[in-house]
Amino acid sequence: MLDIEKYLKETKKEIEEYMSSFFPPDMVPHPLGEAMRYALLNGGKRVRAILAITIGRGLQGQDSNILPFAAALEMIHAYSLVHDDLPAMDNDDYRRGQLTTHKKFGEAMGILTGDALLTHAFWVIAGRTQEPTIIPDLVRILALDAGIEGMVAGQVADVLAERQKKANEILKPQSTDAELLEYIHRNKTMALILAACEGGAVTALATKEVREQIAEYGRKIGLAFQIVDDVLDVEGTEQAMGKKVHKDSALGKLTYPGLWGLEKSKAIAAQLLAEACQIVAHLPCAEHLAALARFIVARTY
Amino acid sequence: MLDIEKYLKETKKEIEEYMSSFFPPDMVPHPLGEAMRYALLNGGKRVRAILAITIGRGLQGQDSNILPFAAALEMIHAYSLVHDDLPAMDNDDYRRGQLTTHKKFGEAMGILTGDALLTHAFWVIAGRTQEPTIIPDLVRILALDAGIEGMVAGQVADVLAERQKKANEILKPQSTDAELLEYIHRNKTMALILAACEGGAVTALATKEVREQIAEYGRKIGLAFQIVDDVLDVEGTEQAMGKKVHKDSALGKLTYPGLWGLEKSKAIAAQLLAEACQIVAHLPCAEHLAALARFIVARTY
Repeated sequence: MLDIEKYLKETKKEIEEYMSSFFPPDMVPHPLGEAMRYALLNGGKRVRAILAITIGRGLQGQDSNILPFAAALEMIHAYSLVHDDLPAMDNDDYRRGQLTTHKKFGEAMGILTGDALLTHAFWVIAGRTQEPTIIPDLVRILALDAGIEGMVAGQVADVLAERQKKANEILKPQSTDAELLEYIHRNKTMALILAACEGGAVTALATKEVREQIAEYGRKIGLAFQIVDDVLDVEGTEQAMGKKVHKDSALGKLTYPGLWGLEKSKAIAAQLLAEACQIVAHLPCAEHLAALARFIVARTY
Repeated sequence: MLDIEKYLKETKKEIEEYMSSFFPPDMVPHPLGEAMRYALLNGGKRVRAILAITIGRGLQGQDSNILPFAAALEMIHAYSLVHDDLPAMDNDDYRRGQLTTHKKFGEAMGILTGDALLTHAFWVIAGRTQEPTIIPDLVRILALDAGIEGMVAGQVADVLAERQKKANEILKPQSTDAELLEYIHRNKTMALILAACEGGAVTALATKEVREQIAEYGRKIGLAFQIVDDVLDVEGTEQAMGKKVHKDSALGKLTYPGLWGLEKSKAIAAQLLAEACQIVAHLPCAEHLAALARFIVARTY
C-alpha cells in the first residue's frame, strides 16, 4: 500500500533540490537571484510538479525529460502567485506565513521577479530536456495553458469579476454567472494542472490515446482542486492556511459555495475525484494517480 | 541601390499584418485581446522583427520559420514596454503619443497583458514554426536574452541604479559605474537585438560560423542602438519622440552622454556601426544589414 504522505514529501524534496541550483544567491544582478529563490522555494505543496513526475515516471519516462518540465510548472506557478499578490491585483502582504515577494523586495522587483520566473521556465524546458523532439509540444502545452487559453485568461476574468464586471461583459453577451465561475476556475487553476498531467505524459512519450486519458484526469482533478480551494476559503481557519481566509466572499468573488452551497460543492468535487480515478484505472500509475487525486480533494490546507 | 525607408516601411507592414490575426478584438475574456492588440500594434519601429526577417531571408530561410520568431520578438518587446510603464516601474502615462496600456485598461490589466504577451511569444515559436528541429534553439535564445541573462537582468539593474543602489551592490564588490552602465545597456537593450539577429540566422539554418558572425553584428548594433537612445534623450525634442525626454538625466540615470559626454558617445556608436558592417560584409545580406545598422545609428526619433 502506497504511503502517500511519505511519497509527497520525498517527491517535493526532490523537485526542490533540482530547482534550487537554478538561481545561486550570488547571481548578478543582486538581488534578482535571491528574489527568484524566495518566490520559488517558499514551501509550496508542489502539486503540479508531483503530478507531472508521477505521470512521467509512471509511464516509464526518463527523469532527464520529466524534471525540467516539472520545474517549469513550478516556476510558472510561482510567477503567477508573485504577480497575483501585487498591490494592483490581490494586494496581499503574506503568503504561506511569509512576506510576499513585493513586500520583501519592493514592487518593481516583484514585477520583474515574476517576469524572470516566467521567461526562465521556457528556458528550462528548451535548455534541459534531453529528448529534443518533445520540446515543441511541452512549450506549446505550457504556453497555452499558462497563457491566453488558460491561467492568464482566468486571472483576467477573475480580476474583472471582482470589479463588478458582469459575465456578459467578460465573456459573451448571453453568458451567465455560473458560466463565468466555471470559466474562471477552468482557466485560472485547472489549466495549469491539466498542463502538468498532459505534459507529464508527453515527457514519457505516451501514445495519443494515453495522453488524452491523462488530460481528462487532469481536467477533472484540476476543477476539483479549485472547488476545494473555494470550500476551504469558507471553512478553513487563517492559521491553518497561512493566509487570509474568507477573502473571496469578502471581495464578492464568485465561488462554488457561494453559487451552489457548501454541500453541493463538496459533492461535485467528490464526483470529479471518482471520475478521474476511473479514467486512469487501467494505467500502470493508477494507484499513485488515485492517491494524488484523493489528496487534492481531501486536503485541509 | 536599396531604398531603406521603403524597405523598412514594407517589412514593418508585413510583420504587423502577420501579428494582427493573433488576437481578434472579440477574443474572450474581454478586454484581453483588445489590450494585447493595443500594446502590440501601436506604431513601433519593429527594429527587432525587421532584423530577424532581413537576416533570415538574406540567408535563404523560409518565411514559415522566420515570421513566427520575428513576431515573438515584437511580443516580448511589447510586453517589456507595458511592464516598464507601470507605476511601480517608470510610471509613464504616454508612449508614442498614446496612453500607456495600464492607463487605458487599468493597472491589473497592464500586468496581465504583459504576462499574456510574454507567454504567448513562446507559443508562437513552438506552435507556428514549420521546421521543428529549430524550435528548441529559438526558445533557448529568446528565453535567455529576454530573461535572466538579458533583458530582465538589465531592467533589474536599471531600476536599482535609479534608486541610488551602487554598482558594487548590484554587480560585484569591485564593480564601477562605467561597468554598471555597460551591464545595463548590454542586457536591457542589446540582448534582445542580439536574439533577433542570432535567432534570424537560426531560422535560416545557418552554419555555426555564420551564426556567430551575425551574433557579433547584433551585439555591436545593439549597443549602438542604446547609445543613440541615450544621445536622443539629451538632444531630442519631446514632440519628435512622442514621449518625455530628458527623463534619464532628470532621474539621475546612468547614461553614456552623462558618463562620457555627447561627442564621445556619438563616436563610440559610429565605431560600433563600422565594425558591425565589417563583420557581415561577406554575407549575401550585407547591403541590407549595413543599411539597417546605419538606420539604427542615424535615426532621429
